[in-house]
Amino acid sequence: MPGGHTQTLRPFLWRASKLYEDTEIVSRNHDGMSRRTYGEYADRVAQLANALDDLGIEDGDRVATFCWNTDRHFEVYFAAPSMGGQLHTINPLLPDEHIRYIVENADDQVIFVDPSLAEKMAGAAEGAEEFEGVDLVVMGDADATPLDAASYESFIEGYDTDYDWPDLPDDQPAGMCYTSGTTGKPKGVEYTQSMLWSHTMMSLSPQGIPMADDDVVMPVVPMFHVNAWGMPFTATAGGSKQVFPGPSPDPADIASLIEEEGVTLTAGVPTVWLGLMEYCKENDVDLSTLDRVIVGGSAAPKSMIRWFDDRGVEVLHAWGMTEMAPIGSVSHLKSDLEGADYDTQVEKRGKQGIMVPGIEFRVIDEDGEEIAWDGEEFGELHVRGPSITKEYFKRPDANEEDFEDGWLKTGDVVSVDEDGYIKIVDRAKDVIKSGGEWISSVELENAIMAHDDVQEATVIGVPHEKWQERPVAFVVPTADADRDTLDEEVMDMLRDEYPKWWLPDAVEYIDEVPKTATGKFSKKDLREQYTGSMELHEGSVPEDAAPEQD
Amino acid sequence: MPGGHTQTLRPFLWRASKLYEDTEIVSRNHDGMSRRTYGEYADRVAQLANALDDLGIEDGDRVATFCWNTDRHFEVYFAAPSMGGQLHTINPLLPDEHIRYIVENADDQVIFVDPSLAEKMAGAAEGAEEFEGVDLVVMGDADATPLDAASYESFIEGYDTDYDWPDLPDDQPAGMCYTSGTTGKPKGVEYTQSMLWSHTMMSLSPQGIPMADDDVVMPVVPMFHVNAWGMPFTATAGGSKQVFPGPSPDPADIASLIEEEGVTLTAGVPTVWLGLMEYCKENDVDLSTLDRVIVGGSAAPKSMIRWFDDRGVEVLHAWGMTEMAPIGSVSHLKSDLEGADYDTQVEKRGKQGIMVPGIEFRVIDEDGEEIAWDGEEFGELHVRGPSITKEYFKRPDANEEDFEDGWLKTGDVVSVDEDGYIKIVDRAKDVIKSGGEWISSVELENAIMAHDDVQEATVIGVPHEKWQERPVAFVVPTADADRDTLDEEVMDMLRDEYPKWWLPDAVEYIDEVPKTATGKFSKKDLREQYTGSMELHEGSVPEDAAPEQD
Repeated sequence: MPGGHTQTLRPFLWRASKLYEDTEIVSRNHDGMSRRTYGEYADRVAQLANALDDLGIEDGDRVATFCWNTDRHFEVYFAAPSMGGQLHTINPLLPDEHIRYIVENADDQVIFVDPSLAEKMAGAAEGAEEFEGVDLVVMGDADATPLDAASYESFIEGYDTDYDWPDLPDDQPAGMCYTSGTTGKPKGVEYTQSMLWSHTMMSLSPQGIPMADDDVVMPVVPMFHVNAWGMPFTATAGGSKQVFPGPSPDPADIASLIEEEGVTLTAGVPTVWLGLMEYCKENDVDLSTLDRVIVGGSAAPKSMIRWFDDRGVEVLHAWGMTEMAPIGSVSHLKSDLEGADYDTQVEKRGKQGIMVPGIEFRVIDEDGEEIAWDGEEFGELHVRGPSITKEYFKRPDANEEDFEDGWLKTGDVVSVDEDGYIKIVDRAKDVIKSGGEWISSVELENAIMAHDDVQEATVIGVPHEKWQERPVAFVVPTADADRDTLDEEVMDMLRDEYPKWWLPDAVEYIDEVPKTATGKFSKKDLREQYTGSMELHEGSVPEDAAPEQD
Repeated sequence: MPGGHTQTLRPFLWRASKLYEDTEIVSRNHDGMSRRTYGEYADRVAQLANALDDLGIEDGDRVATFCWNTDRHFEVYFAAPSMGGQLHTINPLLPDEHIRYIVENADDQVIFVDPSLAEKMAGAAEGAEEFEGVDLVVMGDADATPLDAASYESFIEGYDTDYDWPDLPDDQPAGMCYTSGTTGKPKGVEYTQSMLWSHTMMSLSPQGIPMADDDVVMPVVPMFHVNAWGMPFTATAGGSKQVFPGPSPDPADIASLIEEEGVTLTAGVPTVWLGLMEYCKENDVDLSTLDRVIVGGSAAPKSMIRWFDDRGVEVLHAWGMTEMAPIGSVSHLKSDLEGADYDTQVEKRGKQGIMVPGIEFRVIDEDGEEIAWDGEEFGELHVRGPSITKEYFKRPDANEEDFEDGWLKTGDVVSVDEDGYIKIVDRAKDVIKSGGEWISSVELENAIMAHDDVQEATVIGVPHEKWQERPVAFVVPTADADRDTLDEEVMDMLRDEYPKWWLPDAVEYIDEVPKTATGKFSKKDLREQYTGSMELHEGSVPEDAAPEQD
């Protein structure tokens, strides 16, 4: 080997604890605010690793968390991978049966549990053989919970504040996260040390989400969602102050943490920011320290971009996937668009962005050809790069469907404009395949929902003898709507905008659009109800195309 | 393998040519200015790769360059590594015998030669069996040179502008550079694809030398010095406009390129910027586009930092090594020093800086212990990280001396202050070991040279029976100096500043300090002259601790 040492998380922890020893890590915990320095943090991470050694955790063992965004959770983030274990963040919002499946599938040895989630964990674990032999540690006082568990502080107390961090190979599994599809069992994605290192460095680039020692970083996106989009690792590498907003932060909590801790950079799904915007209407909130808000999970409304712009805060739209660890693209405004009018700029910034350095992509249409970058054509987005998984954990069936020639098939159907901005137009399993062409269900839905008398709408493809599939629109009228004319009004609207073959074959009224457990439109349920069969429409691609918060 | 695709240069070329197709690559060539886009660049890189295929270049073959900073040189930068070959940049300033040694040692298959260096190449190659079977390509009209060579444009003409870039393994050798020590044969350092990828990403970080699409990047540091500190790769990844200053740019060339191309970021050794500063005194130069000047190779004088500050330009001092590809540390001002007084800030920024994320270091004193970070103690700097070589090419002897437990022993003796800023106090082979303690020869030299009547001075350690070594100062007095009193005046100055055991045992007058071929003080020659023997003082560490320009 001519060179190249291993890429691990170790240098990031080392750098922050040595160069930013006094920089703070602040956490809103169940029992009040916690405030420590990177120096103290590194000591506690070493104590935790020593405690896990004593518990019998060995190289390659899975160390799970069932936690909100707190400083103790962040301690597991570095301790488990750096000692050679694997950080497995479990989504506590999943149904119990999924949690049991995941704990067994991952072979978790120990689970760290937030006190506020102890009841949920007790319910999932009760009588479940999947939990046999699994140690539990509560991130607080275990006696105050129904769990037979250790309390975190006594678990690490008395251990040495030094740990001889090993030299780990690049491909050592360091992290794990399950994607939670709407159908089938969750699929595990493993992150190697090198994948997390690469993701951190790509995030740090000016084209990603750069963080430096003058940043105060607060991930609102949960730490169980793809490592909070990797932010705790990136912030450590950059030497930023970190703020963890704790269990179920409401808009008032978020506002006061921004004000009191001087947050410069935060991240979450659009609903979080809509909540904050609403809160700011009624309350006097000082957002002056805030520079950037990262929005992901679903599209940022343009009104949100404008609202933050008015307050001197840049909204950066990011797109990624669990399989990508997760960042892929970020909607930075390209420098040659700086002279464009503001509407054009907002239009560009509202897209899913341009790919960070180190990731390559291609967009393949139904004929297997690469699409033109004209903002019109669309196809399925494929990606490759050093932060992207090559397979699912113990799921050869899913591997065959989702990987091809070294590319990950994202399941997102996108267009790419002349400037290289990606825009998601649909999920591959929701796009309607009609007569050899693709119709975006999302575009039709958005167009229909623009009608004042439409409360909600969704469009699915239904099997068609001649055309393979044809679109059918499902509309929830408002209370005041005239049901006799609404369907025709909707069709007239669409006729103005779309070619004839895009127009739905029917507009059906329903009382509500079926939703998934996390509040998203469940087209699967609708297809089952409408066609009596889901065979023709079962998609193969993961639901969670982007990191999300529920 | 759970995941992680290979880390290669390919995504950087892909990204620039797709997302920044119209961004310019400008070059001051021997026959005038050249101006192309990344789109055209990518076409030409593919043509070059196809031409090299036809020449018989195969996976792992070395493709050498003997060139200044030009666009054609930059084409070899991506073509050779991306097709699976290895870019070997030869320093044309080396003596002929070293060039012959290097060409044979590296087993170069083809060498691209700048027209202005054709005479030099002809001299080195004449009658040399090392050049048998080596193809030559002139970066211009070969007929106008004494070389039996192809002309670059006809070499690539007519070839396909597409190339099916292969999937290369991480550890595929992609680059090569020889360190040119003052003693012994040059030592080859190989860069794998992953090392160059990692270096590019670390450079892109805010803690490195970030580059984005609003930057215009001009490396004045030669492209044969550790890939011009990696800047052509980093600028491509960032989508920056690039400006290549061509053969032997003088201050007027540099000034006009900055003005005409709107350069925002440039890099080179201090003498380049001293030349520009001098030129600006006599000429009206518009530096308004310039944001940052990277200085490396040797220390940036504080007056230079202040001069550029006055013009709104940030001087960033960088430290690195050929073995590191090369960037290690950059002297960014830490955010908690923003409130410090200006002198303190300049003091910090004049040091070698703080290590970029991804690199770890330790500083070991003569007893093998890590030093305190107090800005006083010093020891040898050891580094490790994914951009650092693990061995020299075919030089097991050097490997034993320069590598230890996964660390590269840099040969630089440094102190580290409370803020983590590294300061080079000496070369390990020049530091004076006296009575179990170390004395910095560089510090004594700087102190002595502060005397008005001293033109030059150097300090070496000479063998001593009791103390192992003792410092002896060699002083070149100015023409006006009083040689009867100067030695005592110098000693009096030192007595005020340094402990007694630091004081030289003697001050000797000499006519001039012996210099190396590249103009640096040659302590080796002085030791030979003074002691009649160099045995005791032959260092083992490489001379070129930092990327340099001659």
